[in-house]
Amino acid sequence: MPQFQANVYVTLRPSVLDPAGVAVQAGIHHLGYSGVEQVRIGKFIQLSLTATDEAQAKTQLESICDQLLANSVIEVYRFELMEIVPKTPLTTN
Amino acid sequence: MPQFQANVYVTLRPSVLDPAGVAVQAGIHHLGYSGVEQVRIGKFIQLSLTATDEAQAKTQLESICDQLLANSVIEVYRFELMEIVPKTPLTTN
Repeated sequence: MPQFQANVYVTLRPSVLDPAGVAVQAGIHHLGYSGVEQVRIGKFIQLSLTATDEAQAKTQLESICDQLLANSVIEVYRFELMEIVPKTPLTTN
Repeated sequence: MPQFQANVYVTLRPSVLDPAGVAVQAGIHHLGYSGVEQVRIGKFIQLSLTATDEAQAKTQLESICDQLLANSVIEVYRFELMEIVPKTPLTTN
């Protein structure tokens, strides 16, 4: 079965206050970088999954995100899905 | 001064154990998706910064990552930097 590499980005909805982002922004200003604004912290999740094809991998990943990785009340997610093509071993005669 | 949008990805070094990733993987298996492996959790940080040019923005962002956003002992980071081009207002004669 083909294997896929997924990168999932889970971020707070724009309307949701981000206390962690506010704290990090204050820390950055404290370091002297006053030109930094709108700091938002999210989750970057990497995983590999096996599926019969890309469509099934996409469906599986959507339901994993909906059920576990993102809290849909306050978070949104997007992901990238790449098939991992196994390197063909060099055959030496 | 030009404004830049930055997306920073902070991940654990491959050699470092990821207990959060292990826990999430167990949760995913519990949901019935046994084909999921190598779950790794990182931080996805978005921010905007003003700088004289892209080189300065890059230098600033590197030192912000080194000093605050990533713990270089156990984490690595990469980032994308995009200049925010203000939309020219429609002039109606």
